[in-house]
This record gives sequence, C-alpha cells and structure tokens, in this order.
Amino acid sequence: MKYELYYWPTIQGRGEFIRLALEEGRADYVDVGRLPESEGGGRAAISRLLEDAGDGRTPFAPPILKAGKLLISQTASILLYLGPRLNLVPRAEAARLWAHQLQLTLADLVGEAHDTHHPIAGSLYYHQQKPEAKRRAGHFAGERLPKFLGYCERVLADNPGGDRHRIGKSLTYVDLSMFQVIAGLNYAFPRTMARVKSHYPGLVALHQRVMQRPRIAAYLASPRRIPFNDQGIFRHYAELDGD
Amino acid sequence: MKYELYYWPTIQGRGEFIRLALEEGRADYVDVGRLPESEGGGRAAISRLLEDAGDGRTPFAPPILKAGKLLISQTASILLYLGPRLNLVPRAEAARLWAHQLQLTLADLVGEAHDTHHPIAGSLYYHQQKPEAKRRAGHFAGERLPKFLGYCERVLADNPGGDRHRIGKSLTYVDLSMFQVIAGLNYAFPRTMARVKSHYPGLVALHQRVMQRPRIAAYLASPRRIPFNDQGIFRHYAELDGD
Repeated sequence: MKYELYYWPTIQGRGEFIRLALEEGRADYVDVGRLPESEGGGRAAISRLLEDAGDGRTPFAPPILKAGKLLISQTASILLYLGPRLNLVPRAEAARLWAHQLQLTLADLVGEAHDTHHPIAGSLYYHQQKPEAKRRAGHFAGERLPKFLGYCERVLADNPGGDRHRIGKSLTYVDLSMFQVIAGLNYAFPRTMARVKSHYPGLVALHQRVMQRPRIAAYLASPRRIPFNDQGIFRHYAELDGD
Repeated sequence: MKYELYYWPTIQGRGEFIRLALEEGRADYVDVGRLPESEGGGRAAISRLLEDAGDGRTPFAPPILKAGKLLISQTASILLYLGPRLNLVPRAEAARLWAHQLQLTLADLVGEAHDTHHPIAGSLYYHQQKPEAKRRAGHFAGERLPKFLGYCERVLADNPGGDRHRIGKSLTYVDLSMFQVIAGLNYAFPRTMARVKSHYPGLVALHQRVMQRPRIAAYLASPRRIPFNDQGIFRHYAELDGD
C-alpha cells in the first residue's frame, strides 16, 4: 500500500504524529503537501481535497491520509487505522482501544498547548491576543501541564509490560506521539520543562529512547523533518514560558 | 452485557453523547454517578476509578464506560466501541472510520463551545475570565460556528444515503451527537442560532427528527435527562450571545 499524507508543508503540526508513525513503520508514503504544485502537491492539493473529496466524505481539516480509496482525517483516527497495519500497536482489541484513548488524551494536551498562544481565535495573530495568551499560558504551566504529564508518567509506571513503553512490551504509535509531545514542549517551554523534568523521569527517558531509534534518528536528521517554528502548534515565545 | 457509565451526575457534559447512544440502543446500563454513594455511586465512584483502575489502565477523565472487564474513556472512543454493539453504525470499516472522524470533529466543536466561557482556565470561574470570554465568543459565533455547522450541513447534503442521516441510510450515533450539539448550541446561543438557522435546514430537520424518535423522546421527558445548566459545556450567558 502506498500512502499519501495531506498536511501543511511548512509545519510539523498535527501531521507530525502521522509522519513519525509512517517513518518508524517503514511505510511507503508521499508527503503530498511538500511536493511542488507542478507535481500535484503543495497547498493546492490539500485545498482540492477539502473542497470536494468526491465520494460524499469530504474531510474537515488536515491531516488527511489517503490509503487506496479510503480517506481518513483526524490525527487519532489515522493512527487508529495505521497502527495495526504498521505493526505499531498490539493485536488485541482492548490494547488498541487503550492506545486510542491515550492518543486522544495526548490530542487534548496538544490542543491546550496550542491555545496557550491562541486563546481567543486562530484567525488572529499572536500579538493580537498576547495578554490573554500570557494568562492562559500561566494556567497551562501551573495546572494543566502537571496534570497531563503526571498522568502520562503514571501510565508508563503502571504498564504491566514495563516502563520502557506506554503499552505492552514494544513500541507503539503512542510512544512516538509521546516523544513528539515532549519534544514540542521542550521547544515551546524550555524554562518550564527544565524546571519540572525531574518529576517525569520515565517520560524523559522515553523521549531519549525514541529519538535514538535508527529510523527516527535518520528521519530527524533528514530534510523530511520540518524544524519547529513560530507557525506550528508548539511555539516558543519567551514571555509565555514562566520566569 | 450490562454497561456502567461513569460521568458527573449533575451535568449533561460529554457524558450525554454516551447516554443518548445507550438510550437509543436500548442498552442495559447504569449511570453510576447518579446512584447514591450508599449504593456505590456518586462522585466517589468516579474518583475511585480515576485513582486506580487496577489493571494499569487508569483513565484520564470521565466519561468512562465499563463493559465487562474493559474500561474505555474518551467520548469518541466509547462511541467507536459502542456503535457496532448497539447497531448505531454501519458494519463496513470505511463507514465506521468515517463515523469516528465526524464524531471527533464534533468533539472539536464541543471543545470550542466550552472555551467560549472558559478561554483562560477551567480552574477559574466564568466571572474571572469574562472579558476574554466575550472576545472568544465573538470569534466563535462569527467564524468557528459557521465553519463547523456549514461543514456538518454539507456532509448531510452529500450523504449518498440521503440527507436524513449523516451516514448511510439509517440512524447512527453521529446523528444522536449532532442532535445534542444543536440542542446545546440552541440553549447556549439562542439569539445567534435564531439568526443563522436558515443556513442549516438539514441540521435543523435532523435535530427535530432525532428529538421525536420514541426512545429519545421518552428519555428527554424522563428524569434521566439532566437539564442544561450553568455548570455544563453548553452554558447560556446572554453577554456571550451576540447582539
């Protein structure tokens, strides 16, 4: 199966959770948004899908995965589909549902991380909502981040398969996504993360281990990995990163 | 199978999407949070699950469904599980994935509707974030609501199975959730909804049809349906409802 990923070409964003799974799963895929428009890629290719997918099942927003005739949107839903096909989730239904729940909880965390810099509207610039962003970011760092990371650390510690993975005894797409979340938080909130990381030794170790996996390391060193920047979900604004 | 739903006893909230599916699907279920604590219910029962589910798979937050030994959290994930078991989704994998994507997109809309009254922090009262709420609500009504509802209307119109349902030719859990979203928006933003509803004739009709289904009508008229109030996701504050 040759997969096609449709996602914005200049940010990691939500598409990155899919890219990491495709890379680790050694999938045959094209990152369509990053192809030139002359080759049928770019933003134009995404816009065409969002205008009319042609089968009455037009997606709401990227990321979108095309797998044969199937179009799948919503990050967690794409990973639910890809997980078993890329051998990135256990076979049992209970484990797959558990993986999906953990992924959806990460999605909630990612949404809240985004809203630290856009608490009022996605259609406004950051500088148009800066006081609100500062206020929201304070609550995020003080309340939400510890709640989410404390939960993630605990899931790792409680895993009957051992604390090297969030589920079972081998790597799943949830570990890849956890890596990406920690990487994003380290980029956006370096001071905060330096201050709190000793509370989350399991997550810190997981982040390191995933980063060193051969396929992930190769991906991260390649031009396929878009650097963090000030357009994505995780953005670094020093004034939102505590004192 | 006897299902147990664990959700806050005084609000519709995210639990309501599960309650509607259980009611329409004629499931044998207990709304544990609404039982007295002396019978093992109430908030205490939920807190116990969140402290330690006992199998290394402690959920992050309610709603939580207990199905035999299985615990499932995250609203969309619970519906993914319940859908086929309650005959509330077509059998084909492609249709189930499509239903799940639509549900996740509704979840995004619900999250944004919530943040109109809590744009800064869930830990603060509404009156502590009122100016920010007013600003966010304006963008919600002006940009996000039309985007989401326009999309939902379009999915209905594009459904190859006809515009009486969002998917296929019979009722799915996505229709039930769509009903709940329209009901919530009508409650929270009556002026805005009165102003825009002519743009969404399909959704208005769907809302009416679902409301009149015998089991849903019976449920809505029963004490099992908690009224909308100022603690839930959809709250009515006149100052957030345009002019």
